[in-house]
Amino acid sequence: MPTKKGTASGGTRRTPATGSRAANQRADAQRNRAKILAGTVTAISRNPDASVADIAAEAGVGRVTLYGHFQNRAELIEAALMDSLERGEDVLSEVPLDGEAAAAFQRLVASSWVLVDQSRALLAAAQKELPAARIRELHENAEARMRGLLLRGQREGAFRVDLPVSWLLTTTHVVMNGASEEVRIGRLDPEDAPRFIDAILLPAFTQKRDR
Amino acid sequence: MPTKKGTASGGTRRTPATGSRAANQRADAQRNRAKILAGTVTAISRNPDASVADIAAEAGVGRVTLYGHFQNRAELIEAALMDSLERGEDVLSEVPLDGEAAAAFQRLVASSWVLVDQSRALLAAAQKELPAARIRELHENAEARMRGLLLRGQREGAFRVDLPVSWLLTTTHVVMNGASEEVRIGRLDPEDAPRFIDAILLPAFTQKRDR
Repeated sequence: MPTKKGTASGGTRRTPATGSRAANQRADAQRNRAKILAGTVTAISRNPDASVADIAAEAGVGRVTLYGHFQNRAELIEAALMDSLERGEDVLSEVPLDGEAAAAFQRLVASSWVLVDQSRALLAAAQKELPAARIRELHENAEARMRGLLLRGQREGAFRVDLPVSWLLTTTHVVMNGASEEVRIGRLDPEDAPRFIDAILLPAFTQKRDR
Repeated sequence: MPTKKGTASGGTRRTPATGSRAANQRADAQRNRAKILAGTVTAISRNPDASVADIAAEAGVGRVTLYGHFQNRAELIEAALMDSLERGEDVLSEVPLDGEAAAAFQRLVASSWVLVDQSRALLAAAQKELPAARIRELHENAEARMRGLLLRGQREGAFRVDLPVSWLLTTTHVVMNGASEEVRIGRLDPEDAPRFIDAILLPAFTQKRDR
């Protein structure tokens, strides 16, 4: 992967030569970190049980370099997941959430699904390597956005109110992850997934006025 | 835990004394195995990361004895899960599946939930320790029963046919497991769980004739 050469930026009180060397080292470190995180996703996607050595090889860095950034596999997986979630936030924050709540929910689920679909292997590895509470914590922003929308839908009568929002949120979460697992094991075509997810969640969440 | 003294049974060509000793050893081994499996469930329920040493202590057997039965933690967890699923089969096979499909589905989900609720800690440990495919395989009987009922419901027009039965099955599975996880982290009262599960699955699976 081609990366830009780090340019020495000033702002230190060291001599120019030392400052430049330090800046180069920082730029190198940043490039290595990015290479390691990208290599983690690739290696894990190929083999969910990829070792730290496999990941270092994939990233094209030595194990010593890798261990200089991440102490163990769990730290590595966590950093890669954080990185992936940060980029996911850039996408999700652009989804228009105004207008009819059920339609906005469909848009948000569709965009979330794209991210779940992309980060499937990484998330599966994280589920094995990290405590469930930590994974939940990392998804806090995405969860807060979905919760806010579900609450608005409940207030406006679009979504049923006989179930707490936490249960609607959990259902959304497990149905999307269930679809992801079905895709992973080849039982569900990823093209069908958004429709299948909506087909469960919308009737389940929509108030039945005529019952 | 009091256990019956093993009685020597014949049927071998060894001398009576040897045969009796062998039978006693077999009975001891069976008792130890049962103690270890029960100890596994107790230890794992108390601490999901309970080690083999913790489990041996809980079972009241030495580590050497434990390793004589199970080579490692994964084998132990798998055996405890198999044992729990076998006892679950005894319960599920008694659920009446005839009559109206949606009502039979509710009965089967309610009984399945009791089992999921009881084996929560063991299943969580299995999900960390065993490959997902193996866990799925162990649930084969339970899954086949649920699939048969969902298929009948689809044939009879009780359940929607615009989604494959595999997706209805997956949804049932993930919603029940999601409820179990919510109970585990204290966000869902186990008393509410059966109603919450039905409240999602029934409207989602029921054909909307008037849409």
